[in-house]
Amino acid sequence: MSRYWSKVVKQLSPYVPGEQPKLAKLIKLNTNENPYGPSPKVIKAIQAELGDKLRLYPDPASVQLRQTIADYYGLNIAQVFVGNGSDEVLAHLFNALLKHDKPILFPDISYSFYPVYCGLYGIDYQTIPLADDFSLNVKDYVRDNGGIIFPNPNAPTGQLVSLADIEYLLKNNTDSVLVIDEAYIDFGGETAVRLIDHYPNLLVTQTLSKSRSLAGLRVGLAMGHEDLIEALVRVKDSFNSYPMDCLASVGAIAAFEDKKYFESTCNKVIQSRQMLTEALTQLGFEIQASAANFIFAHHPQRDAAELAAALREQGVIVRHFKQARIEQHLRITVGTAEQNAALLSVLSAILC
Amino acid sequence: MSRYWSKVVKQLSPYVPGEQPKLAKLIKLNTNENPYGPSPKVIKAIQAELGDKLRLYPDPASVQLRQTIADYYGLNIAQVFVGNGSDEVLAHLFNALLKHDKPILFPDISYSFYPVYCGLYGIDYQTIPLADDFSLNVKDYVRDNGGIIFPNPNAPTGQLVSLADIEYLLKNNTDSVLVIDEAYIDFGGETAVRLIDHYPNLLVTQTLSKSRSLAGLRVGLAMGHEDLIEALVRVKDSFNSYPMDCLASVGAIAAFEDKKYFESTCNKVIQSRQMLTEALTQLGFEIQASAANFIFAHHPQRDAAELAAALREQGVIVRHFKQARIEQHLRITVGTAEQNAALLSVLSAILC
Repeated sequence: MSRYWSKVVKQLSPYVPGEQPKLAKLIKLNTNENPYGPSPKVIKAIQAELGDKLRLYPDPASVQLRQTIADYYGLNIAQVFVGNGSDEVLAHLFNALLKHDKPILFPDISYSFYPVYCGLYGIDYQTIPLADDFSLNVKDYVRDNGGIIFPNPNAPTGQLVSLADIEYLLKNNTDSVLVIDEAYIDFGGETAVRLIDHYPNLLVTQTLSKSRSLAGLRVGLAMGHEDLIEALVRVKDSFNSYPMDCLASVGAIAAFEDKKYFESTCNKVIQSRQMLTEALTQLGFEIQASAANFIFAHHPQRDAAELAAALREQGVIVRHFKQARIEQHLRITVGTAEQNAALLSVLSAILC
Repeated sequence: MSRYWSKVVKQLSPYVPGEQPKLAKLIKLNTNENPYGPSPKVIKAIQAELGDKLRLYPDPASVQLRQTIADYYGLNIAQVFVGNGSDEVLAHLFNALLKHDKPILFPDISYSFYPVYCGLYGIDYQTIPLADDFSLNVKDYVRDNGGIIFPNPNAPTGQLVSLADIEYLLKNNTDSVLVIDEAYIDFGGETAVRLIDHYPNLLVTQTLSKSRSLAGLRVGLAMGHEDLIEALVRVKDSFNSYPMDCLASVGAIAAFEDKKYFESTCNKVIQSRQMLTEALTQLGFEIQASAANFIFAHHPQRDAAELAAALREQGVIVRHFKQARIEQHLRITVGTAEQNAALLSVLSAILC
C-alpha cells in the first residue's frame, strides 16, 4: 500500500485467474480453453493482415467485426458491441448498465469476477443461493434489483437455464437489465439472442475464448437493444477508443465465418464430455449434467483440494475453488481424447 | 439515452478519435502514425506465434514483455506495467493514482482524453494555461493538487519540457503522482525513466503506436516505483486479467529488441520533420520547434478549418481541433518523403 494510491485501489480485491503454467508438458484442464486450435482460416486471415499496416490504428468502431457478428446472429450492427475479451465487455457493462442505487443480483456460486467488478465500480450486490443441486431458479430473481447477471450455462457448475425460464424472468423483470453471460453456450445451450428484439433490457455476452478457440486473441462481445449497446460504446470511448487490435479483429471475423470448423470442434468437445462424465462416474465421482466444456465433479470419499494437488504432482492441472459450498468440487476442463485418457489414468492411480 | 443507463454513462463526454478513413488512397497525416511499417522482426515473431496455441490464454502478468522492457530501460520487472494501448494504461492510472480529493492538474492545451478520463472516474481537474507561445512552465504546477499529468513532448503542440524542469517539479511536488506521458518522446526528447529510482511519485507512460509503428497492435506501458505499478496491477486485475493478447506481446517484444530498426526509422522521421518544417515555413506557416512526429502549424492569412477541409478534398487528411486558442492551428503528422511532397504540392495549390 502506498500513500499515492486512490481510495478505489486500496479497497479492491482483484480477481485471481487460473494458472497459466510455463511448463509445456503439463496437461492443462484448469481454465476451460478449447483443446482444439482455432480454424486454419483464422490463421490465414491473420497472416494476410500481417505487414506494414500494423503501423495504422484499427477502426475504433470495429465495423467489419461487428457486422460479421450481426449477420451471423441476424441482428443489426447497432445491436453488437465488441471488446478486448468478454472480461472487458463485462467490466464496461457493470459500469454502464448495472451501477444503480439498488443492489444487483447474481448466484452465490458463479463467475468469481462479478463481485470484483462490483468492488471496482462501487456497486452493491446480493447473491442468490443456488439450490442444493446447484440449479438456478429464475423465480428467486423476481425481486427489487438494480440488475441481474448470471452465466448460462453457469460456471463453475455447468448447469443450464432454459430459454423459457429466461423469458419468464424478462417478463417479470422489466425495470433493470438482465445480462446472460453466454461464455459456454455453444457447448450445449441455446443462445438468448433471439429474445433481443422482444426485450429492451436483455444483454447477451459471449466470448471467442472457449468455443472458438481464441483465448489468446482476447475477443468478447455483447448483443442487445441498441440503447444498451450505445451505453457500452460511451463507456468504451471514455476508456480506450481502440480496444480491438487489427489482428484480433480479422481473426475473430474468420472464426465466425468458418461455421463448419466451429460446429465440428464443438461436437467433438460435447462427445468427449459425455465419455469423460461416464468414466469419472465409474471412478466414483458425482457429476451433474454439464452444458459447458467442463465438468463439475465431487468425490464423496476424497478431499477435492488434495485430489487437485495430487493431480498437479502428476502433471495434470484442474481448478479447485476454496469457496463455501463448492470446496469439495473440482472443475475439470474437457480436453482432447488423449488428455482425457491421461487424466483418467492418473486419477485412477490416485484413487486406488 | 435510456432508463437502463447508469448515472455514470449519462454524464460521459466520450473522446473522439481521429478519423480512420476506409479509402486507401487518402494521404493520412491526421493521427500521428509512423509512416514506416514495423520492424520485419516484429512480423516474423508474430508469424512464429501463429498457430494452435491461440487457443490458450496469454500470461496474465505479461512477464516476458515486461522483462524485455525492464531490460531495455535498466529497470526491474516490478517497475513495469503493460496494457492494451497507452489509452488503457492512462485510464487505469487515472483511477488508481489520480483520483483523490484535490483536483488534478494538466495543461489547457493537451491530450484531449485527459478530461474524458476525469469524467469517467469522477475526478476533479484544473487546467493550467500554457504560455502564449504554447510553452509549458513547470513552476505553474507547484501548487496544491491531487496529481499532475502532461505529455512530453506535449500534444498537439509538439513542445518539449526539459528533464531538468521535470526534476524541478518532482523536487517541489512530493505529495502527489506526476505522470509524464511520453507517447512522442522518441522523436527528439529524453525519457524521464532515469529519474524513476530517485522519485517514488514519478510515473512515465509510453506507447508502441508511434515510434515503434505498432498502432494496430495496441500496446502501451507505464514505468515507475513498484508501489505505483502495484496499484495499476490491482486495477487491471479487477477489470480484465488478460489485456495483452499473445500476438501483441510477441510483436512488442520484437519491436523493443530491434533497436537498430527503431533508431533508423525515428531518425528518418526527424529528418523529414526538419524538411517539412522548412517547406511549410516557406509557404507562410508559423511553426514552433516540434520534438514529436507531427508539426503544429498556423497560417496567419488562412483559416485553419478551411485549410483542413480543402486538403481533405484533395485527399490529404490532417487534424484540426475546434478548441479555444488552437482553432487556427493544424496538427500535421510527418509522413514519408512522398507523402510530405504530396502534402506540400496540394498545400501550395490551395494557398496560391
